[in-house]
Amino acid sequence: MKYKAKIIVHLKEGLNDPEGRVIGKALKNLGYKIGELKVPKYFELTFESENPEKDVEEMCRRLLANPVIHTYSYEIERLGE
Amino acid sequence: MKYKAKIIVHLKEGLNDPEGRVIGKALKNLGYKIGELKVPKYFELTFESENPEKDVEEMCRRLLANPVIHTYSYEIERLGE
Repeated sequence: MKYKAKIIVHLKEGLNDPEGRVIGKALKNLGYKIGELKVPKYFELTFESENPEKDVEEMCRRLLANPVIHTYSYEIERLGE
Repeated sequence: MKYKAKIIVHLKEGLNDPEGRVIGKALKNLGYKIGELKVPKYFELTFESENPEKDVEEMCRRLLANPVIHTYSYEIERLGE
């Protein structure tokens, strides 16, 4: 069966996100009242699987996220046969 | 008022996404049946505003996205006073 997954990989709290800091600062300089800005990694993929939850969980652990510094979450949507 | 926004910036259809292609290939090599994998940009921010829709729309146009090559979408959630 075909599925679509959206995967968000966050840096764990307290870890340095220089890209987010720089973009947040640039938006402040443009006059916006930014509190905090983060730039998590985001993946969208379509895939075929008999066990989509297990596969996406595995993809995150094996390749997309580093459990030492990241947390991840995902949504899976069924696309059809 | 305080708000939280989640902003996704996609490359327009047909544009080259080498990062997505490489990660998709790596997952295929691990045995997953990947169709397509994309790596849009993703921003999460908290901000104060009187007109959050207008501000987020502006941030996208002025800094976060390039209208020539990107499309963007966002969700805004109210956090409190």
